[in-house]
Amino acid sequence: MAELITPPELNVQTWLNTENALSLETLRGKVVAVFAFQMLCPGCVQHSLPQANRVHALFNREDVTVIGLHTVFEHHKANTEEMLKAFMHENRITFPIGIDMPSVDGSPFPQTMSAYRMQGTPTLLLIDKQGYLRKHHFGHEQDLVLGTELASLIAE
Amino acid sequence: MAELITPPELNVQTWLNTENALSLETLRGKVVAVFAFQMLCPGCVQHSLPQANRVHALFNREDVTVIGLHTVFEHHKANTEEMLKAFMHENRITFPIGIDMPSVDGSPFPQTMSAYRMQGTPTLLLIDKQGYLRKHHFGHEQDLVLGTELASLIAE
Amino acid sequence: MAELITPPELNVQTWLNTENALSLETLRGKVVAVFAFQMLCPGCVQHSLPQANRVHALFNREDVTVIGLHTVFEHHKANTEEMLKAFMHENRITFPIGIDMPSVDGSPFPQTMSAYRMQGTPTLLLIDKQGYLRKHHFGHEQDLVLGTELASLIAE
Amino acid sequence: MAELITPPELNVQTWLNTENALSLETLRGKVVAVFAFQMLCPGCVQHSLPQANRVHALFNREDVTVIGLHTVFEHHKANTEEMLKAFMHENRITFPIGIDMPSVDGSPFPQTMSAYRMQGTPTLLLIDKQGYLRKHHFGHEQDLVLGTELASLIAE
Repeated sequence: MAELITPPELNVQTWLNTENALSLETLRGKVVAVFAFQMLCPGCVQHSLPQANRVHALFNREDVTVIGLHTVFEHHKANTEEMLKAFMHENRITFPIGIDMPSVDGSPFPQTMSAYRMQGTPTLLLIDKQGYLRKHHFGHEQDLVLGTELASLIAE
Repeated sequence: MAELITPPELNVQTWLNTENALSLETLRGKVVAVFAFQMLCPGCVQHSLPQANRVHALFNREDVTVIGLHTVFEHHKANTEEMLKAFMHENRITFPIGIDMPSVDGSPFPQTMSAYRMQGTPTLLLIDKQGYLRKHHFGHEQDLVLGTELASLIAE
Repeated sequence: MAELITPPELNVQTWLNTENALSLETLRGKVVAVFAFQMLCPGCVQHSLPQANRVHALFNREDVTVIGLHTVFEHHKANTEEMLKAFMHENRITFPIGIDMPSVDGSPFPQTMSAYRMQGTPTLLLIDKQGYLRKHHFGHEQDLVLGTELASLIAE
Repeated sequence: MAELITPPELNVQTWLNTENALSLETLRGKVVAVFAFQMLCPGCVQHSLPQANRVHALFNREDVTVIGLHTVFEHHKANTEEMLKAFMHENRITFPIGIDMPSVDGSPFPQTMSAYRMQGTPTLLLIDKQGYLRKHHFGHEQDLVLGTELASLIAE
């Protein structure tokens, strides 16, 4: 890898499923897997969030931190926090979820999504133990590939 | 069949995807397939609503009318009409959807759901051309079975 | 339907899972669903034969007769009767299977397959109660469509 | 891991898809993934062999060697080498396949299968770069788990 990228910090309006706000800064030393999603994105519901649940169930918390990032860029009024909480309950999501900070300039894209120049949802980010961004993937990633990458990052 | 059951009329607060309110009464002469669902019910999103879309795509409108009935009995505050419209858009639902009338007695179950004594979602109802209730099924039904039943009711 | 087609008779070398040889002639009065397959055709193993099992399980034997037709046109030496019996056991096939009669003119295509001008496997044939060919479909057919068609043919 | 196990050598009658016979001995330095299967085992065809194909496609040949081991313990007469070759062609298997050596004592179980005390098919073996057996799993393993394990063994 020619050059290591230090990614933007997560800019989160509200955290759910966690007592304390999370930040990439304080997670240094662990591999971080961020699953950016929207509740109304069928690919997220069918593929990405079940994968996030599998990763959260498989790895030791000391090795990998799973974060869901709710990056709403469509149907803003419909995506209430109330709905997100109910959605998390029904989809048995127990890892921390951050609601991406809405834009202040009228853009439909929330701030973390913009800072990472994400193209849509689902998007997967992997951040290594030193805090570098090692994967930025739009769309679904195969489990075999993701398992390999996570184990490689843990072993570094 | 020993005895034919005339089912309760649909009691709907708001209709979407249709210019006119629907009723079993005015649909006499057609087979009616009612798919009762909730947006946050994983079995509805993964199995029942895709099946409703297939039925709606396959059959002649003169033969079969597909209706989605949004029977919210959990997470009432989250299930806004705004969210339902966005959900229908993202899940490409083009058949009529009725929002079941909320109870007035403090019950979590809406009125049509109660009148039919539905046990949960998804629930499938088939009403024949004469207006009799011929199937009341809690859970997912196989496509092969449903196709057979619809064709039999059309042929009557 | 402009014109009704009387299909060629099945030309079978060996019947399995049945005491008596079957023929379209003697099955007059029932709907017949013929699933042409090869053991080594992945689409047959994954989609067509499981569907044949579902049809065989769902319908009354007086209404629908399910027949598997082993139409080997590739890997002839590998497709032994011994293997077919083991395959049927492992895939829990309990409906009658006919081994299509090999060609006598050196063609790789067996005789029933040639007579019907089948393009490959899986192929589905539906024959109505009067013995007319009502469906000839190359590839997998949806369960919803097949259920509808079978019920319509039964109701005629 | 309390104690490292040096596994029995593969005892193979015939190798396919490889010019030279393979042995765990000569593969020292690479991680070896052995997928024991039977052509007529539905779980092997649907889950295990497609996974073996994915592993073979994903990893560098210098890191991981994928081997299919045809461990026939049922339907011996049906499982001819001719059929296996046709099966490999139709299922697009390009990694080396070894036909497990039949028993000489009348046991239905072939010799490698017996030496490893495998309980059935599919069975997955992982051998590390030093030649130790690190995983012996009866049934299907999740892709996420397998990816993690392979990457960990490569990183050792």
